[in-house]
Amino acid sequence: MTDLAEPAEQVVVRVGLAERAYDIVIGSGLVEQAGALIAERLPGVRAAIVTDRNVAGRHLSRLKSGLDKAGIDNVAIELEPGEKTKSFDALRGVVDAVLAARLERGDIVIALGGGVIGDLAGFASAIVRRGMRLVQMPTSLLAQVDSSVGGKTGINSAHGKNLVGAFHQPSLVLSDTDVLDTLPEREFRAGYAEVAKYGLIDRPQFFDWLEKNWREVFAGGAARTEAIAESCRAKAEVVARDERETGDRALLNLGHTFGHALEAATGYDGGRLVHGEGVAIGMALAHRFSARMNLASPDDAERVEAHLKAVGLPWRISDIEGELPGADGLLDYIRQDKKVSRGALTFILTRGVGQAFVARDVPASEVRSFLAEQIER
Amino acid sequence: MTDLAEPAEQVVVRVGLAERAYDIVIGSGLVEQAGALIAERLPGVRAAIVTDRNVAGRHLSRLKSGLDKAGIDNVAIELEPGEKTKSFDALRGVVDAVLAARLERGDIVIALGGGVIGDLAGFASAIVRRGMRLVQMPTSLLAQVDSSVGGKTGINSAHGKNLVGAFHQPSLVLSDTDVLDTLPEREFRAGYAEVAKYGLIDRPQFFDWLEKNWREVFAGGAARTEAIAESCRAKAEVVARDERETGDRALLNLGHTFGHALEAATGYDGGRLVHGEGVAIGMALAHRFSARMNLASPDDAERVEAHLKAVGLPWRISDIEGELPGADGLLDYIRQDKKVSRGALTFILTRGVGQAFVARDVPASEVRSFLAEQIER
Repeated sequence: MTDLAEPAEQVVVRVGLAERAYDIVIGSGLVEQAGALIAERLPGVRAAIVTDRNVAGRHLSRLKSGLDKAGIDNVAIELEPGEKTKSFDALRGVVDAVLAARLERGDIVIALGGGVIGDLAGFASAIVRRGMRLVQMPTSLLAQVDSSVGGKTGINSAHGKNLVGAFHQPSLVLSDTDVLDTLPEREFRAGYAEVAKYGLIDRPQFFDWLEKNWREVFAGGAARTEAIAESCRAKAEVVARDERETGDRALLNLGHTFGHALEAATGYDGGRLVHGEGVAIGMALAHRFSARMNLASPDDAERVEAHLKAVGLPWRISDIEGELPGADGLLDYIRQDKKVSRGALTFILTRGVGQAFVARDVPASEVRSFLAEQIER
Repeated sequence: MTDLAEPAEQVVVRVGLAERAYDIVIGSGLVEQAGALIAERLPGVRAAIVTDRNVAGRHLSRLKSGLDKAGIDNVAIELEPGEKTKSFDALRGVVDAVLAARLERGDIVIALGGGVIGDLAGFASAIVRRGMRLVQMPTSLLAQVDSSVGGKTGINSAHGKNLVGAFHQPSLVLSDTDVLDTLPEREFRAGYAEVAKYGLIDRPQFFDWLEKNWREVFAGGAARTEAIAESCRAKAEVVARDERETGDRALLNLGHTFGHALEAATGYDGGRLVHGEGVAIGMALAHRFSARMNLASPDDAERVEAHLKAVGLPWRISDIEGELPGADGLLDYIRQDKKVSRGALTFILTRGVGQAFVARDVPASEVRSFLAEQIER
């Protein structure tokens, strides 16, 4: 971890994936500077910008004028906002539009938006001409610290979320910290759950720092830049160790098995629970369950719960409004989660803050009785 | 090159792509043996067989009974035969069917069929759960010596052929030489053009051998097995040098720039010209054009033309029945070909049999006047 006491205004994180290494640039004013930064690193390219109508209204004209100034020929493809856009139909629409613009393999798709746009546009760039170059410009905190790093792209299927996709690394990621000021507070806070996650996985000093500095991260400026940069470093390290998710990368799912089950149990109703909130509750549950299994001290579970509570995130099942299924129902959702490998229950558990590990063959009966307790909290 | 004087009955070609290395098994009776061979190499997998109705009628029940015997749980997905199946709609259908069968990442898609099935099923396996395992069982000579080797998968778009896809290496290729006996003679012969191509690229001894032994290759048995194996070795070597087609792999397009233009000019009417026939004429043209540019001796062009003629393949533009556009029209088709990079005309030319090379910036005016001459032959 770099020295967090003196955070920098603009930070470049290098993701070291051998011949597919790339830079993540994090800082202020990057929407305007994108044209110049792209022209410098990827000379001569043409661009297709994929975005949604909400993001387009706020940022597209500034991005386009920067590209124009840098002499980068560009077209924009605007989609409907929302998770429904991660579909086969939208994928086909983007692929056709990129081909219609006669872009070649060396040209770029720019994904300007949150996780939905990044996943969809990233997948389209992975399959047009068997792989074009991709520039991620994530506009939500969640996308800046999670989905834009690591090369996972994809769409949903009737059989589940993210079941169709590709591993496709970007050539460049530009994370403009200013655009986060246009986000609703709740969305920023939900994204923060993933920031805290990196501390909990294997960076205890980062978690300490967040406990002290989270107000500054929420306020913006240098602390926010540094929190995003440290999150990207954390994710990039795990991805570099395990690009195609055969081992360690599973650690990034800390909080996600419980979280996904809760998202599914609320019917993916964002009014009740958004992804980051599910992860927050999931992380608290993973620490509490680890304590119950005598793997970690209950003090660590308390500490995690206290921090989530302090920043205003939900941390227990009863924080979710409305009806929920009982322990058996939640367990069924866990079983259906795609991370279930050959019938065994795999969880990310912990030995304490910053000491997460992959636990395979967790007994379903233990999970069930734990959930029955937790529903009552 | 191995000693072609004593060809073996069953041959295994290892494709050396580091952690993605795999075997191509070529020989007799492999449809029946597939279950046992897969169980041995990929223990514990479940399978989705993707095939077309014609191939299913001839080979599916034998494949399924072998899989059943080996304890490999399997489902079959049957598609319409023909190039139209390489579509977004068919892709979605296969993806949904594989997910409905609840296959996991470590399970396999078996592509049982010609190039259309291999490309489509291969692409589906590349994107379901961001990459499942793939077993190619090519049932045409063209697929056995070309499309099943090298990891290119994909579908067509309204903007052109193979414009959407992925690089996805199979875990195993099983090429049953018996199934080729059920092919129409014309289809086998067209596939042979790609066999000859490997000799012309960089294996002059193989081309010598084919000149002497082509009748035995057409008749079946050991010479056929060896011709397929040598073709796979040739392609595998090029692919291993350049998996993602940034350089040398372009050599495999010998004959394809002219060939694709001719296919396009006939409106992809297989009654007039099938892919391998287009490649045959394209290879003859590439050698003749190289001679005209003083790169190679006219004797080499004569030799290539004579061999294609001997095996019954078309070798000049006038061998195509019906109306064709003039030199300008053909040049337009060449310009539209996806291998055109940033406006420059790239051709695979040659310094003689077995000495092909990538020529960039070939003057369009030279190509035009050459085509004007050749149309009259």
